[in-house]
Amino acid sequence: MKNVIGRNIPEYINGIGKVEPFLGAWEKLKKGWMDEITVPPPNKAKLPHQCKSCMDLRMAIEKTNPHDGMTVSFHHHLRSGDNILVMTIDILAQMGIKNITLASSSLNNSHDSILKYLKDGTITKIWTSGLRGELGKAVSEGVLDVPVTIHSHGGRVRAIHTGKIQIDLAVIAASAADEEGNATGAHGKSAFGSMGYARIDSRYAKQVIIVTDNMVEYPCTPTSIQQHYVDYVVKVDSIGDASKIASGTTRITKSPMDLRIAKLAADVIENSGMFTEGFSFQVGAGGASLAVAKFIREKMKKNGVKGSFLLGGVTSYGVDMLNEGLFRAIFDVQSFDAAVSSSILKNRNNIEISSGYYANPYNCGCMTNKLDIVVLGALEIDIDFNVNVITGADGIIRGASGGHSDTASGANLTVVVCPSFRGRIPIIKKRVHTIVTPGETVDVLVTERGICVNPKKPELEESLIKAGLKIKKIEDLQKEVEGITGVEKPIEFTDKIVGIVEYRDGTIIDVIKQVKNAN
Amino acid sequence: MKNVIGRNIPEYINGIGKVEPFLGAWEKLKKGWMDEITVPPPNKAKLPHQCKSCMDLRMAIEKTNPHDGMTVSFHHHLRSGDNILVMTIDILAQMGIKNITLASSSLNNSHDSILKYLKDGTITKIWTSGLRGELGKAVSEGVLDVPVTIHSHGGRVRAIHTGKIQIDLAVIAASAADEEGNATGAHGKSAFGSMGYARIDSRYAKQVIIVTDNMVEYPCTPTSIQQHYVDYVVKVDSIGDASKIASGTTRITKSPMDLRIAKLAADVIENSGMFTEGFSFQVGAGGASLAVAKFIREKMKKNGVKGSFLLGGVTSYGVDMLNEGLFRAIFDVQSFDAAVSSSILKNRNNIEISSGYYANPYNCGCMTNKLDIVVLGALEIDIDFNVNVITGADGIIRGASGGHSDTASGANLTVVVCPSFRGRIPIIKKRVHTIVTPGETVDVLVTERGICVNPKKPELEESLIKAGLKIKKIEDLQKEVEGITGVEKPIEFTDKIVGIVEYRDGTIIDVIKQVKNAN
Repeated sequence: MKNVIGRNIPEYINGIGKVEPFLGAWEKLKKGWMDEITVPPPNKAKLPHQCKSCMDLRMAIEKTNPHDGMTVSFHHHLRSGDNILVMTIDILAQMGIKNITLASSSLNNSHDSILKYLKDGTITKIWTSGLRGELGKAVSEGVLDVPVTIHSHGGRVRAIHTGKIQIDLAVIAASAADEEGNATGAHGKSAFGSMGYARIDSRYAKQVIIVTDNMVEYPCTPTSIQQHYVDYVVKVDSIGDASKIASGTTRITKSPMDLRIAKLAADVIENSGMFTEGFSFQVGAGGASLAVAKFIREKMKKNGVKGSFLLGGVTSYGVDMLNEGLFRAIFDVQSFDAAVSSSILKNRNNIEISSGYYANPYNCGCMTNKLDIVVLGALEIDIDFNVNVITGADGIIRGASGGHSDTASGANLTVVVCPSFRGRIPIIKKRVHTIVTPGETVDVLVTERGICVNPKKPELEESLIKAGLKIKKIEDLQKEVEGITGVEKPIEFTDKIVGIVEYRDGTIIDVIKQVKNAN
Repeated sequence: MKNVIGRNIPEYINGIGKVEPFLGAWEKLKKGWMDEITVPPPNKAKLPHQCKSCMDLRMAIEKTNPHDGMTVSFHHHLRSGDNILVMTIDILAQMGIKNITLASSSLNNSHDSILKYLKDGTITKIWTSGLRGELGKAVSEGVLDVPVTIHSHGGRVRAIHTGKIQIDLAVIAASAADEEGNATGAHGKSAFGSMGYARIDSRYAKQVIIVTDNMVEYPCTPTSIQQHYVDYVVKVDSIGDASKIASGTTRITKSPMDLRIAKLAADVIENSGMFTEGFSFQVGAGGASLAVAKFIREKMKKNGVKGSFLLGGVTSYGVDMLNEGLFRAIFDVQSFDAAVSSSILKNRNNIEISSGYYANPYNCGCMTNKLDIVVLGALEIDIDFNVNVITGADGIIRGASGGHSDTASGANLTVVVCPSFRGRIPIIKKRVHTIVTPGETVDVLVTERGICVNPKKPELEESLIKAGLKIKKIEDLQKEVEGITGVEKPIEFTDKIVGIVEYRDGTIIDVIKQVKNAN
C-alpha cells in the first residue's frame, strides 16, 4: 500500500507487526489518537531505608533479572563520549542474554563496538532516533533481520506511553547522583546538561539503574531524575569521555556559504510576519542553523524585539541571548556545551524539560506546539519540501530524526536551511531517498542559490516578495542544481526493508531499503 | 472480621465494595503490592497553537462535559482561604450534575457551604485526608449514605495510581499561570507555596482546568504544574482570601505546657542515637511540634551537628534553618507561610515536591522512607501507641490524616508530642476512638507528665534512661491521667459506618461510626 505521500509501506513487517501508514501531519491527532491504548507505569514499592547502592554495574544488572528478549534503554546526552551503553551491553552479552531490543534515545559513533552484538544475536531489534558510523552502515547493509525503527524525540515518548516500547531496564548515566538515585547532568566532571530524554525512561522502565562517576551527598540537586523512580545506584570510574561530552562553547560557523544562507534565512524570518514581540524560537546546533541565531540576535537588538522562549537543543549562544534579556526563558531538552550545564544550575529561567514536555504529540500541549519559528537543516529536500535527515546520498543511514519532524509540525514558521548541493551531489532533489519530515510541515527552503516558499503558504511568499526577497520555484531551483551536478546515478537497493521511519504519531512515513553492493 | 490490630472491619461496604483489612504497617509492601493493578494516565492530544483560555470557570467546566457520577478533584494548598472548590461545586450543582464524588486532597472550614450539596444528592461520595467544621459534623451524623474515605497524603497518590480514585475533572487553583497552563503557587497576591498535592491530579485527571487570579506572561515559572497536562486555563478575580491562605511568618507557641513538652521531646531526640551528622527531620506546624524545631535548632548549633534535609509541610522556621546552613535542603510538599513561597522561588535548595515523591508507598523510595526523625501531634493516643488524628473526643470528625501515618511508617524515630489531657478529657486512652496511625510505627510518646517508649524499641528506652530521662510505662501514664480526669463516659454510636480510614497501602485500618444523639 502507498501512504498519503506516495511511499510504499507494507501492511505487515516481520518482527514489527501490522503497520499504520502515514495519514498527514495532523490527521491522526485530529481523529485517531483517542483509540490508541496507553499503558500504566510499572508498580513499584520499597521498604523504608532500604539500600539502593550496588558495588558495580554488573551487580546492579544482575539484580534486575535480565532475560532473553528484554528491552534495554539509554539516553544519548553524553553524545559521542558515552561509555555506559557499551559497558552495559558488554555485561549483558557476557551474561549470555540474547534477543535484546535496544531502545536508546539515539546512537552515534561511540557505539560502534556493539556491532558484534548485532551479528551474534545479542541485539536483534533497535529503536532509535539516529544511527551513524559502523552501525548505520551495517544496518543499511542488512545485518539485522528486523528493521530498525527510527523515531522522533517526541515520538519516542508517545511510543513508550502507548506500550510500543516496553522498557525492562533503563540504564541512566548521570554526572552527579546520590545514594537514592536523585540525579542530574548539570554538574560534575562529566556534566552534560539537561537529562530531558531520560525522564520518560525513569518513569516507565520496569527497572531503573542510575550510573554516575560522581556520587554526591544526599540530596543531589537539581533532581532531574527523581529517586522514587530509581531501583539501583552504581558508581563507576567514568561515564564517558568528558572532552567528547561537552565542548567549551559552541562557535558560529565561519563558512562563507553557511553565513550567506543564514543571513538570507534571517531576512526571511524578519519579513515573515512572525518576527514580533514575544516570538518563540528554535535553531539547530549545526552550521547554517546556529548562524541564523547570530543574525536574528542582531535584528532583535536593532529592532528592539524581545522574544518569549528559546527551545530545544540548547547552545551557549542561546544562553547568551537569555542573559542579554532577548528571551525570557530557555526550555532545554538537550544541552550542547558546558556553558549550558552551568546555566541550568544557576539560572532558573533555563528550564530543563523532559522530551514529553518538549515534543510528545500525545499530550495536552508540548512545547514544539507553541513554537513560532524553527530553523532546521537537511541532508536532502525534495520539490514537495519533504526532508531527509536520516540517509546519506549513498542510501546509508547516517543521521537522526531528532526533533526535526516534531518542531516542523508545531512551529508557525518552519525554515529549512541547506546548501543546494554538496561536492557534486545535489541536496535539492525531485524525490528524497527517505522522508523524515513531510513537506506539508515545511514552509520555506533557504539555500545559497535562493529562497523557495511552500505553495501552501502564498501569503508568506507575498510578504517576502514585498520585502524585496527573491523567491524561486523549488522545481526551478532543483533543475538549476541538476544542471550543475548532472543527473545522479540512482542508488541500487534490494527489496529487504532495513529501517522504518515512524512519524511522531506512530504512523509509518517511509521505509529504508537494504543497499546493494555496499562497500 | 477483625483486622490485625483488632478493629472490626466489614468485608463489604455498600458504595465502596469489598475492603481489605489492615495487615500491619509494612506487610502489604512486603508481599501484596505487586498484585495491585495500576492504571495508565489518560491519553490526550492537542493541535499546535490551539487556545486553552476560557472566558470563565463555567465555560471551562462546560467544555469538559461534566456528567452525573463524575469525580472532581481539588488541592487544599489554599487552606481555609480557598474559594475555588465551592465555586466549582456551585457551578456543577447549577448545571444539575448529581452523584459527584468529591476527591479533594483535604477539606476544611472554608468548604462548609457545600453541605447543602451533600444533602441534595449533588455530592454522594467523598475521598479526603481531612474533614472539619460543619462538614465533619454532618458526615459524623450520617448525612451521606456511602462512608467517606479518609486517606493519607501518600495513600491518595497510591489510590490514584491504582485507579481507586479516577478523576474526571481536576480544578487546580494557582497563584500564577500562563495561557498554556504552566502554573505555580510561589508568587502572586494569593501565593501559597508548593503545589505538591496537585501534581498527581494534573497527571491523572481526564480533564484539567487551571484557575488563577494572576495571569502572567508566557512562560510562567516555576512550572509546578506543566502545560502538557492542562486542558483549559481560566482567570478569576480571586482564588481565595489571601489573609487566610498565608500568614506572614509562623510563630513558635508561647504556651508553657507546649514548650515543656517540646523541650522534653528535643532531649529524647538528642539522646535517641538518631541525632547525628546528616540526619533528616520533619516536624508538624502545630504548637508543641514546631516548638521542638526551636530546641533542636539550638542543640544543632551547640553540638555542631548539621542535617541533610527537612521535609514536609514547611514553615518559615524551616526556611531559617536552611538559610543558616543547618540543613542542606528542604523538600516541600506544602508551605505554611508566605516566607516559604519566596524561598521556593529564590532558593534552589528549597525543592518543591509532589505528594508522590513525598509519601507514596507504591514507588521506588518516597522521601518519608528516607526520614530519620519525625515529630507528630495527636488528638488521642492509646496504650498500644495507636494514634487518632481524625475524630474528636465526642466522636465527631474534626481532623486530618495528612502525612501522619506516612511519616510515622518511614521515619527511623517517630516521636508523638501531646498533652496528657485537655480540659478534663484524657488524650492518653486505653483505646483510641479511631486509629489513623498504627502503634507499631510510633516509637516515643512525650507528654508534660513524662515519656513513654514503645516496648518494641527496648534499646531506645535504654539509651534514654542512660541519658537521665525518666521513662514511664504508657499503661501507668494512662492510669495516672485517668486518676485526674476520671473515667470518660463512652460515646454512643449507631451501627452505621460514616467513614473508613484507609491506611497508606490501601487496606482499612479503622471505620468511623455514626454518632448517636449528636447536637
